[in-house]
Amino acid sequence: MLRKLSVVWLLTSVWLVSGCAAAQPAADSAPMLVEKQTFTLPVFTTFGGQKIENVKVGWESYGTLSPAKDNAILITHYFSGTSHAAGRYHPDDAAPGYWDALIGPGKAIDTNKYFVVSADTLVNLNAYDDKVITTGPATINPLTGKPYGLDFPVVTIRDFVNVQKALLESLGITRLHAVVGPSMGSMQALDWAAAYPDWVERVISVIGSGESDAWTTAALEQWTMPIRLDPNWQDGNYTRESAPVAGLAAALALITQHALHPGYFESQGNKLGYQPLEKGPLEDIRTRHTIVDWLFNRAKSRATHMDANHLLYLVRACQLYVAGHQQSLSQGLADVSAKTLFLPASSDLLLMPYLAESAHDTLTDQGVNSELITLHGPLGHLEGVADVQEQASAIQAFLEK
Amino acid sequence: MLRKLSVVWLLTSVWLVSGCAAAQPAADSAPMLVEKQTFTLPVFTTFGGQKIENVKVGWESYGTLSPAKDNAILITHYFSGTSHAAGRYHPDDAAPGYWDALIGPGKAIDTNKYFVVSADTLVNLNAYDDKVITTGPATINPLTGKPYGLDFPVVTIRDFVNVQKALLESLGITRLHAVVGPSMGSMQALDWAAAYPDWVERVISVIGSGESDAWTTAALEQWTMPIRLDPNWQDGNYTRESAPVAGLAAALALITQHALHPGYFESQGNKLGYQPLEKGPLEDIRTRHTIVDWLFNRAKSRATHMDANHLLYLVRACQLYVAGHQQSLSQGLADVSAKTLFLPASSDLLLMPYLAESAHDTLTDQGVNSELITLHGPLGHLEGVADVQEQASAIQAFLEK
Repeated sequence: MLRKLSVVWLLTSVWLVSGCAAAQPAADSAPMLVEKQTFTLPVFTTFGGQKIENVKVGWESYGTLSPAKDNAILITHYFSGTSHAAGRYHPDDAAPGYWDALIGPGKAIDTNKYFVVSADTLVNLNAYDDKVITTGPATINPLTGKPYGLDFPVVTIRDFVNVQKALLESLGITRLHAVVGPSMGSMQALDWAAAYPDWVERVISVIGSGESDAWTTAALEQWTMPIRLDPNWQDGNYTRESAPVAGLAAALALITQHALHPGYFESQGNKLGYQPLEKGPLEDIRTRHTIVDWLFNRAKSRATHMDANHLLYLVRACQLYVAGHQQSLSQGLADVSAKTLFLPASSDLLLMPYLAESAHDTLTDQGVNSELITLHGPLGHLEGVADVQEQASAIQAFLEK
Repeated sequence: MLRKLSVVWLLTSVWLVSGCAAAQPAADSAPMLVEKQTFTLPVFTTFGGQKIENVKVGWESYGTLSPAKDNAILITHYFSGTSHAAGRYHPDDAAPGYWDALIGPGKAIDTNKYFVVSADTLVNLNAYDDKVITTGPATINPLTGKPYGLDFPVVTIRDFVNVQKALLESLGITRLHAVVGPSMGSMQALDWAAAYPDWVERVISVIGSGESDAWTTAALEQWTMPIRLDPNWQDGNYTRESAPVAGLAAALALITQHALHPGYFESQGNKLGYQPLEKGPLEDIRTRHTIVDWLFNRAKSRATHMDANHLLYLVRACQLYVAGHQQSLSQGLADVSAKTLFLPASSDLLLMPYLAESAHDTLTDQGVNSELITLHGPLGHLEGVADVQEQASAIQAFLEK
């Protein structure tokens, strides 16, 4: 139980990467050391047809590329994640990358066999994290000398894929053994297989979806409202010094709750001695319940290295998502030849399991070799990530098929 | 299906009463005409020990009080509801009260038998609805000549109950055949039975709960954030002319989604021709998806007769709720002698069915005669209200026990 809660604590970072996540013991005694690198594209044309100059994203890799360059696996990160999927930058780092339990020598995604690559997306949420390299509305617009703000073009999941493709091509890679990602990472993984079927042999979609339906698109919009209402937002024209941090923190608190489930709050409430009829909130409308303080104070501390406009752009990319980026999911998935494995979580309130099931059914109907394993447990969206380690052998077997 | 959707359209008003709800055909040819009345308390002492002078609430009744005054049923309204539970003020009203399908001559709550009373709560959300009479932060503080704002004392579900008790006493009533309410109304119904066991013979809790657990208290806080962030809110010091309507509308949009379920959005999306990859949102970050416009425009139009501070006070009343208003639910329910009937909805994302089940189990363990019927269907919290009419015969039988 303690292990499980500690995992959950770490994995609160699925939609909300946390710089202060609890340390997780490494499977090996010697930590895998990794290095952040920078990939630059002098000019990039978005799916919507806009040009962005001097696009930079960070990336890192684990394992060794084979001489035939046929052992590459791409890891695509979640909404608030980064390219730091595994390993440590320094032996004394408090925590390793978010999927360190899955990725490494002898692990399910075995770096003794595979060359594993992970890149920061465009408009990455952690714009002010010194280990993240991204291009988005917080980037200085060379035409004005000020941050792009809302002049930055809308970008899509396909644009994240296309930047990754250019990065892989720069390494001489033309084929992927697999693309694996949780949550927003699953969107990139499936879109990869739809857009570039000759590249992708396998897809693992963890707590994922095939498209954003009406419900999900509306729910994602809710995340943006605290930012839009913050007087510091100024229609996106702000500097880091005058940023809408209160709105951003409120957005993060909403996302955190959306990614969890009552059972986790019950555990946390028990630790805090939660009861509905607390004295402070009864006596003063301005005083919050302890459980509310816990949630919102954590969100506030996480907001410090994130950018509010980047959150709006990530939401838009997710809202526009339909694998294949066509007018329908079945049309978009028509050319997929990769084997697929879906791992939805039954208690997921954010990307509910019907979304993965629908994509799995569409692929199966089209003759694709697709598997689906539903994860059961009380942790909501994060259950998918906590339990995915328990599915390590299924993941390993799928990669060896 | 059309009937069902029309019912849902009407019942979007469960947490969001809508002045423009679709008309619902009356079960009888002659509409039951009702009249709003005012109940005044010169001074009221809150559960928290604060005094409020000149408390006024609106109320209405259906049916006739028996000479023995032993046939009264109290209906307690939901978060955004009002005392208008049934009937019409004028024969040409577009819509009747929200539970008109349940309450009336020959209906499940039969006004040929019962004298049915319903009252506006304190801090009612619809502060500017000319058919609603309430006292709350939007009321003029006699000491300052300005709205109370956050100087209004915190009120609880128990305070709603105590005002209703004073109203009933003014009518000579000292015992209730039943208290029946949906959602926040269920909180009042169960608290009635806990606080005044000698009064209450039966409780029907529809899509209800026994207490606000850590999850629910945190989720309720999310509703308040758009208001707190709206620059017009001014820490609660605003006039109606400069009210935080954008924040209030965003709060209502969040509540609406919380009270529904993906299936309803899918239907609405189909009507709008929803698809993720819409041209407008792809081309401009400022342009919203059609489904988002639909949700937020409806919320905006509903906000016009509501008050933002009242929403904050209603949230606080719900956060402080534990039936019996003791330190634990089992302690609070210890004196209940009423028969209880719980009707949770399996797809409810707002007050999830475990909340009603927990109250039912606690009562059963304490020897109370308690029944629970889970409603199944795809409409979320509102499923409970839509399907409750389908449980009319179970409700009728329970009232006759």
